[in-house]
Amino acid sequence: MSDPGENSGDIRTADVIRKKRDGHELSRAEIAHLVDGYTRGGIPDYQVSAWLMAALLRGLTRAETAALTDAMLHSGQVLDLSEFSSAKVDKHSTGGVGDKTSLILAPLAAAGGLVVPMISGRGLGHTGGTLDKLESIPGFRVDLSIARFLEVLRSCGCSMIGQTAEIAPADRKFYALRDVTGTVESPFLICASIMSKKLAEGIDALVLDVKAGSGAFMKTEEDAAFLAELMVETGQRIGKNMVALITDMDQPLGLKIGNALEVQECFDVLRGRGPADLRDLCLQLAAWMFQVGGRADKVEQGKELAARLIDSGKALEKFRQMVALQGGDSGVIDDPSRLPRAEHSLDVISAESGYVVAMRCEDIGTACVILGGGREKKEDSVDPAVGIVLHKKTGDRVSAGEPLCTLHYNSDPRAARAKKLLEQSFEIGPTPPAPKSLIRRTISG
Amino acid sequence: MSDPGENSGDIRTADVIRKKRDGHELSRAEIAHLVDGYTRGGIPDYQVSAWLMAALLRGLTRAETAALTDAMLHSGQVLDLSEFSSAKVDKHSTGGVGDKTSLILAPLAAAGGLVVPMISGRGLGHTGGTLDKLESIPGFRVDLSIARFLEVLRSCGCSMIGQTAEIAPADRKFYALRDVTGTVESPFLICASIMSKKLAEGIDALVLDVKAGSGAFMKTEEDAAFLAELMVETGQRIGKNMVALITDMDQPLGLKIGNALEVQECFDVLRGRGPADLRDLCLQLAAWMFQVGGRADKVEQGKELAARLIDSGKALEKFRQMVALQGGDSGVIDDPSRLPRAEHSLDVISAESGYVVAMRCEDIGTACVILGGGREKKEDSVDPAVGIVLHKKTGDRVSAGEPLCTLHYNSDPRAARAKKLLEQSFEIGPTPPAPKSLIRRTISG
Repeated sequence: MSDPGENSGDIRTADVIRKKRDGHELSRAEIAHLVDGYTRGGIPDYQVSAWLMAALLRGLTRAETAALTDAMLHSGQVLDLSEFSSAKVDKHSTGGVGDKTSLILAPLAAAGGLVVPMISGRGLGHTGGTLDKLESIPGFRVDLSIARFLEVLRSCGCSMIGQTAEIAPADRKFYALRDVTGTVESPFLICASIMSKKLAEGIDALVLDVKAGSGAFMKTEEDAAFLAELMVETGQRIGKNMVALITDMDQPLGLKIGNALEVQECFDVLRGRGPADLRDLCLQLAAWMFQVGGRADKVEQGKELAARLIDSGKALEKFRQMVALQGGDSGVIDDPSRLPRAEHSLDVISAESGYVVAMRCEDIGTACVILGGGREKKEDSVDPAVGIVLHKKTGDRVSAGEPLCTLHYNSDPRAARAKKLLEQSFEIGPTPPAPKSLIRRTISG
Repeated sequence: MSDPGENSGDIRTADVIRKKRDGHELSRAEIAHLVDGYTRGGIPDYQVSAWLMAALLRGLTRAETAALTDAMLHSGQVLDLSEFSSAKVDKHSTGGVGDKTSLILAPLAAAGGLVVPMISGRGLGHTGGTLDKLESIPGFRVDLSIARFLEVLRSCGCSMIGQTAEIAPADRKFYALRDVTGTVESPFLICASIMSKKLAEGIDALVLDVKAGSGAFMKTEEDAAFLAELMVETGQRIGKNMVALITDMDQPLGLKIGNALEVQECFDVLRGRGPADLRDLCLQLAAWMFQVGGRADKVEQGKELAARLIDSGKALEKFRQMVALQGGDSGVIDDPSRLPRAEHSLDVISAESGYVVAMRCEDIGTACVILGGGREKKEDSVDPAVGIVLHKKTGDRVSAGEPLCTLHYNSDPRAARAKKLLEQSFEIGPTPPAPKSLIRRTISG
């Protein structure tokens, strides 16, 4: 067992661990020593995991969080988008059930003149992932090289790809270690992980959609607001325009859950239709993207701009361009039957009459994973066709015998397991619940 | 990065880490999973170091500490001393400066009819180590096999050796990892480390000498008492007779510091002479060994027995036997000039007149390490000849120009460094300090 930092310069890794353990603030140099040393292989896993646990239990200051983010951000390539005169703006969501806003916002913001270099992730636990949704479009490639990514950005103003080896390699090493050492659930480490990847895109501004509720990673509005404020301040310390919206995830967003089903629902919204909650959130997030990107003085103007870009078909057209540029079959936009479809469907019926007073949102996401729409283990493949279409959401009136939702599935035993979970996911009561607003708070620092 | 516990039985390592992280109590099975898995190589370092940090910051309950000790104790061979009808009793000190009591107590207790199977350590930081002291006796072997260790025990009732591969291998792996991950300084982990090694000796009872003060690892009496109570309760939970003495380490014990010098001082005590503080502490610790080992009903009787065994020469004779049985030159006992001697000596002179009101005990220990009597780095070899002889201790009257101590050295630059430190290690004041008792507290559960 060795402490390789022992003879390398002034900073000893064991001292950095002890300093954090004892609750003291680390310097930028000490944090950079840790991140650089781990990324290059000079500091072993066992020292970093001890530090991560100390950081989780002791917390990090705002300055430490920014220093950690900055060191991770600069652990690999930071995209140089200075060739684009327009503002480079992205949006990030902490993840939820039925959250497909990225697929709508990238083309919508690009249609409004912003450059949107979006690097996204895959489904994690009960929440869906943007890459999995995009890949349900036949031929769509999310594994573009950085060079091709830049070409797509030049051609249509937006591109959506997955993590590459060049971007924030420190985060991949840290995340893999956190995953097996009980050190995932720290807002400071979550902030550095998200922000380092997003800021490595070379953006000027970022809009954060921090989900709160039973279907989100942050179950309470307080936890979500803490993380949101942390990310906003971290981005601002690194010189970016930042805003965060805390939005409701006590029920799924929109009516469709499952990769190809969600893509269909995105087409609906981009045609000016679709569920009101999904459309409203997209307009609001787009409005903030326009505002932080300097395309709208006020959010209300941004919202009007977004609505016009949908009504004129320009946002949908931008989506069509991006799909074609990334190798996808853009014909699916006019003919959704070209998207993968599940072989079977099955309704979940309400046993009672009354109102939907609450939904077990995480269980609904898990039901979609059980159908094959997400991953139970990392190495699982995803079935793009399966999913759930909701017929009732919180506040809706329902009669006994009416369908609450429809399962689209390809495997009977999986459908049986998912159905059992879904039957317990709708809480029916005699009176309607008090309405709640979708956007709970806006944090702009 | 993997979680190898993931598919092995019911307990997942990541869950055990998270449970401790969140401050919950682990079951015996969960702790055994961790210790066994790490010792056998199934659980990687990076998971154990995260757990160690969580354990350090969250603390362990008494039941968890006992379970950890028990699992580490059973990670290797537990000596079977059932062939001995006498009580098997050991003494352990948490380490200090000039603390040579083990070399006196093992033969003294054996002379009183106890069996003393003492497995000891080397010098650590500013404190000396029993093995280093023993090895200053020409020919003395501390690396006996377990079989030979048992033979020596059968022949003379006591034997003193170093750690072997068979005894508590978990502790070696844990300690090496703790050393580089900032997880040494936890009383719970210290307790499990000490107690697992000691109880693997197959003893019935253990007397603990927990040092408190500027020359000890525990600087305050409160910290020392916390660790002492923890060790006493842990031993009792595992079915052992336990007692702990909190003893003063605000100044060195006895007058001699350095391996061969300390061995000489042991001969003095075993001859009924030697410094009063060292003799008194040995009598008191031996008395408790006799009491927990059933050789004395009351501590006062044990103390009388110990004094008689010294006066009669039986304790010294036992030491002579042990030295011979372990390959050492027992002639050193009658002719200490056969012990290694330093080439040069040098006095440190007092600049002031007054009373010694305090001593920087840790610095005095460090001065001995600087002379070569201990290790600055783990791989350093030790010079058995060098050391410090004190002429003044706390409470003594001193005149300007009088020697405070004498350095015995083999290297001029080392002597110069040590002298500088020692010149600042004696605080001289106009009035004598209030006398303090050597034994501050006795904890017997």
